[in-house]
Amino acid sequence: MSHRVAILGASGYTGAELVRLIATHPEIEIAALSAHAKAGQSMAEVFPHLRHLELPRLQRIEELDFSGIDLVFCALPHATSQSVIKALPRALKIIDLSADFRLRDPKAYEKWYGKPHEAPELQAEAVYGLTEFYREEIRAARLVAGTGCNAATGQYALRPLIAAGVIDLDEIIIDLKAGVSGAGRSLKENLLHAELSEGYQAYAVGGTHRHLGEFDQEFSRIAGRPVEVQFTPHLIPANRGILATVYVRGEAEEIHATLAQAYAAEPFIKVLPFGAHPSTHHVRGSNYVHIGVVGDRRPGRAVVIAALDNLTKGSSGQALQNANLMLGIEETTGLTLAPVFP
Amino acid sequence: MSHRVAILGASGYTGAELVRLIATHPEIEIAALSAHAKAGQSMAEVFPHLRHLELPRLQRIEELDFSGIDLVFCALPHATSQSVIKALPRALKIIDLSADFRLRDPKAYEKWYGKPHEAPELQAEAVYGLTEFYREEIRAARLVAGTGCNAATGQYALRPLIAAGVIDLDEIIIDLKAGVSGAGRSLKENLLHAELSEGYQAYAVGGTHRHLGEFDQEFSRIAGRPVEVQFTPHLIPANRGILATVYVRGEAEEIHATLAQAYAAEPFIKVLPFGAHPSTHHVRGSNYVHIGVVGDRRPGRAVVIAALDNLTKGSSGQALQNANLMLGIEETTGLTLAPVFP
Amino acid sequence: MSHRVAILGASGYTGAELVRLIATHPEIEIAALSAHAKAGQSMAEVFPHLRHLELPRLQRIEELDFSGIDLVFCALPHATSQSVIKALPRALKIIDLSADFRLRDPKAYEKWYGKPHEAPELQAEAVYGLTEFYREEIRAARLVAGTGCNAATGQYALRPLIAAGVIDLDEIIIDLKAGVSGAGRSLKENLLHAELSEGYQAYAVGGTHRHLGEFDQEFSRIAGRPVEVQFTPHLIPANRGILATVYVRGEAEEIHATLAQAYAAEPFIKVLPFGAHPSTHHVRGSNYVHIGVVGDRRPGRAVVIAALDNLTKGSSGQALQNANLMLGIEETTGLTLAPVFP
Amino acid sequence: MSHRVAILGASGYTGAELVRLIATHPEIEIAALSAHAKAGQSMAEVFPHLRHLELPRLQRIEELDFSGIDLVFCALPHATSQSVIKALPRALKIIDLSADFRLRDPKAYEKWYGKPHEAPELQAEAVYGLTEFYREEIRAARLVAGTGCNAATGQYALRPLIAAGVIDLDEIIIDLKAGVSGAGRSLKENLLHAELSEGYQAYAVGGTHRHLGEFDQEFSRIAGRPVEVQFTPHLIPANRGILATVYVRGEAEEIHATLAQAYAAEPFIKVLPFGAHPSTHHVRGSNYVHIGVVGDRRPGRAVVIAALDNLTKGSSGQALQNANLMLGIEETTGLTLAPVFP
Repeated sequence: MSHRVAILGASGYTGAELVRLIATHPEIEIAALSAHAKAGQSMAEVFPHLRHLELPRLQRIEELDFSGIDLVFCALPHATSQSVIKALPRALKIIDLSADFRLRDPKAYEKWYGKPHEAPELQAEAVYGLTEFYREEIRAARLVAGTGCNAATGQYALRPLIAAGVIDLDEIIIDLKAGVSGAGRSLKENLLHAELSEGYQAYAVGGTHRHLGEFDQEFSRIAGRPVEVQFTPHLIPANRGILATVYVRGEAEEIHATLAQAYAAEPFIKVLPFGAHPSTHHVRGSNYVHIGVVGDRRPGRAVVIAALDNLTKGSSGQALQNANLMLGIEETTGLTLAPVFP
Repeated sequence: MSHRVAILGASGYTGAELVRLIATHPEIEIAALSAHAKAGQSMAEVFPHLRHLELPRLQRIEELDFSGIDLVFCALPHATSQSVIKALPRALKIIDLSADFRLRDPKAYEKWYGKPHEAPELQAEAVYGLTEFYREEIRAARLVAGTGCNAATGQYALRPLIAAGVIDLDEIIIDLKAGVSGAGRSLKENLLHAELSEGYQAYAVGGTHRHLGEFDQEFSRIAGRPVEVQFTPHLIPANRGILATVYVRGEAEEIHATLAQAYAAEPFIKVLPFGAHPSTHHVRGSNYVHIGVVGDRRPGRAVVIAALDNLTKGSSGQALQNANLMLGIEETTGLTLAPVFP
Repeated sequence: MSHRVAILGASGYTGAELVRLIATHPEIEIAALSAHAKAGQSMAEVFPHLRHLELPRLQRIEELDFSGIDLVFCALPHATSQSVIKALPRALKIIDLSADFRLRDPKAYEKWYGKPHEAPELQAEAVYGLTEFYREEIRAARLVAGTGCNAATGQYALRPLIAAGVIDLDEIIIDLKAGVSGAGRSLKENLLHAELSEGYQAYAVGGTHRHLGEFDQEFSRIAGRPVEVQFTPHLIPANRGILATVYVRGEAEEIHATLAQAYAAEPFIKVLPFGAHPSTHHVRGSNYVHIGVVGDRRPGRAVVIAALDNLTKGSSGQALQNANLMLGIEETTGLTLAPVFP
Repeated sequence: MSHRVAILGASGYTGAELVRLIATHPEIEIAALSAHAKAGQSMAEVFPHLRHLELPRLQRIEELDFSGIDLVFCALPHATSQSVIKALPRALKIIDLSADFRLRDPKAYEKWYGKPHEAPELQAEAVYGLTEFYREEIRAARLVAGTGCNAATGQYALRPLIAAGVIDLDEIIIDLKAGVSGAGRSLKENLLHAELSEGYQAYAVGGTHRHLGEFDQEFSRIAGRPVEVQFTPHLIPANRGILATVYVRGEAEEIHATLAQAYAAEPFIKVLPFGAHPSTHHVRGSNYVHIGVVGDRRPGRAVVIAALDNLTKGSSGQALQNANLMLGIEETTGLTLAPVFP
């Protein structure tokens, strides 16, 4: 039996990625698509790579008919999302891909996003969407908050280590390299090809990136005490992919064993042999995460490196994995596409 | 029921692309993989993006057991292919992705490849693998010759026009732009990132590219008279994708109508609305072909532009589409993956 | 003795390229810089790669003091340029890098740019800035119109051939590949890294690109009869470089000899040995043009391929070369920087 | 008066970069060029971007006549360099761009390069070529050892901080991102465009990169005690540029002030305003280094980010700067080319 879904904000990259993945999903059908500036257009106009699909025309949200729809993917910009979701029928299951429901504490939201939350009551209800660690809550949830793509990558590298107590909680550095699609289809000078290609640089240096709110929330929760990591994201001249190089203190082999055991049964998380490390090239377009561990020459120090595709496992693939859980579909359905290399 | 296949030459890009596509094909199972220099390694070592799959270890061809195998994909280098295929059991169905069996006439082979063919008897038997135009022959074939990726692109733009007599046969120019993966995983100085990135140039200029042998053979056959096109391929700093800009003489709207009608029922060939034209970005990683037609400011002249992914529709996707036909599987099975954008 | 210049529109790519080139020019000094939205900022903020230079702060044009200034480079958007230049003191020498003064015939301007010219009297006065072909007029000019970068590339390949009568004037096709910086630092969705990288496509297909106005004007003038070429530009995922693949009818060796002779004394135009052809990689960041000629397999047909850097020889390098002429400086001064490879 | 130089190993990228820079150097003339496999060819064949220059043909080293030559740039592979230099006339000044003479201690050489040094007597004589810190020794030297490009980048960020005692010497992490040209023009599978473009990954993880030998030697020397940093280089899909993100413990503003003061008089080292940080894009093709400092949200932690072009300031530009010193030429001559952006 097919489940019917709507995608709000289908003219952005995460919206398009949802359509790409659902295109070959055997049990989900796209019943409605919304856009704002591009309402009235077909998806073939907005995203010609989806031209071969029969898809509903883009409509404004207020024109959509939600009857018969089981689940809504909300791929809208931050802040817009909370007011739209607040107004949706309570009967709908919702997966939000924005940042609006990731932080449970309204004060944390206000700190990182600079203004009070408009739907704090929903914030309490929302389940954090990092599938492997909130699987049962997601299965039962009405509203799931997709994680930040950078935040997901860092957490895959670190959560089992924090939980197992095998690393020093005060000495964690995440040096992260991200492709450009994570910034969305937005008209910003620094996202132009001529500004990015052949260049690379850090951004949001010095503890200012909003995904730190997620790291703080999640790592402190696992540790049962405040944990603050150091986090420096970089923009790399590539379209997809996040590589997190995580510097930790602990025994490298124990760290590797802890990760290997934690993810042994996970279909999408692959821990490489000890000493090997991943490339973003090898997860591109897929829902897989590759994690490697290497010891430093100085004992007691190690590097954990995690790679995933920000648009797939970092957002839309994660969302679809969660949708499968929420709709009672086998979790991996539609998500086992192999990475595209080269 | 699952069909068992072997892939010879699995350490190259077309071999890896076959594995990627078959990974989610419900009716085909990979039973054996061969490599030469990398025999003994696992696919995870040779192609880490396939790490999540359970695959047979790479073996040398002479170590393979072909019993129980239905079909062999032969992704070996040119010239090697003919001697290997010659020695394979006659009971096997074979799809060759090299250039060895594309030219029916042994003299044409010798002209373009510079030496006599070693298996001219098989050359006669081989069916040219451009699926949409040889569908019934392929269904019945034992040996199918995969087309050149450039040759496929040009033919998708031109075959229906030549057949319908709507263009001047003596005034065809194919200016083609190709990504680098078409050159394979070979250690050549001009394929290094530092040599290619940010640069673009023509190659095999002046009627010397071997795919001209295919153009000559096929176009002359359709026209019933010799047809010689002008063909200039260019190397573009991108990994995948072929864009053929084809200059023809004829009425643009008639040309568009001819193509639209010819491909109306084809699942993978999409003719864009008149005046629109395609990007390689919008077919990447997929088996789709996008074709556009635009009239010139001077009446009687038009441009036909075709885009496909050289590794998918241009080689391994085509091969799998042909395998489906040869094995009695629904033709589009495993091939409807949407393009990956961005 | 140093000459003092102003650059209007210094916040765009051609403005920045002028500053880069003048930075090591021994006889030209930058006395004023203007910008519109970014007025008030330093060049180090707007273009951090120029951080090491002592430069005037960006001002609005109306704030500039033109006394003591010898020459103005006008790197403003099309249409803005004509009204600004109209208002500049007559004593100033002016080089305009926009399209505003390229077309001598006001009707041609209106045809290609869609509205009447605001300064038709200046249009008559302006000298077309293709240095090698208008050298003496430029030396004596008050107002020089920089050429289109695509238009320059095509003309370097074709002008001597048309003048010598060695090609068929009715059978010229220019298939051109351009990097993205030619489109300027403008916030357009199709110029985003995620939209361009790994993709390539044609644009302005079918005789609609405005540089056709320049081709028509110049080629018809040389031929003494109307000449209309076919022209298809493509956007390539690279920042700099134009490669024009020009299809002509004529004897290849005669064509090569004609070009070699025409450019024998030119310091910046290099005709490669017969049969060789250029790459954009080998002219990047420089004022050099590389031109190659290859005969087709069919006698009487040839391909001429020209490569240059659109920001240097295609605009700002050309402008500086013209400025040298207008200011009585040795023509090549400051322009012999070798290309940057890789 | 012009000085005559030879470049050994002119068929590699650092050799070509030397030629590019010397092309517009007013006081240095290239008298001889050597290559191994490509001996007999012209530079125009080996590096078409240098086609416009009149250069000596490539010869084998043993064919060169060193009489009348003042200085030799040795751009040969590691290990080859030491045996070649050993055999050169003592009257020649030599700048070696390989790794052979960077480590003063023969045991350190053997440790990092895996075999005994063949010319330990020269090793003692060689001056470490980090210009800003060994200026007087270089001026007087006969043999200067060019630094590793990664090693240079890390040292520009750290040397003044270690000397001033403003950071914790045991808590230094260098996370470095490097473009591909640093690996040279070598035929390795991982340097192919198809393997690199769109992918990024670490390499030599875990304290195994040979440039650690330089860090250890230099930092320990400055500190007067052993200093071991943690160092993780990454390969980025770009041709040029190194970005070093250095994690240190200390007061961010003091760190910034220390760097700003240390480099205040240096012509090529630019310390950005506090809180700003650099991009590789903004130093490309130039001899400039950009350094930024940002404090972390946690007091006592800071990030220092340094960017340079590996082929220019990281190797050939550094070499030319040193050559200027050794030949009594003004130090910045020929090196003030502005970066090429975009």
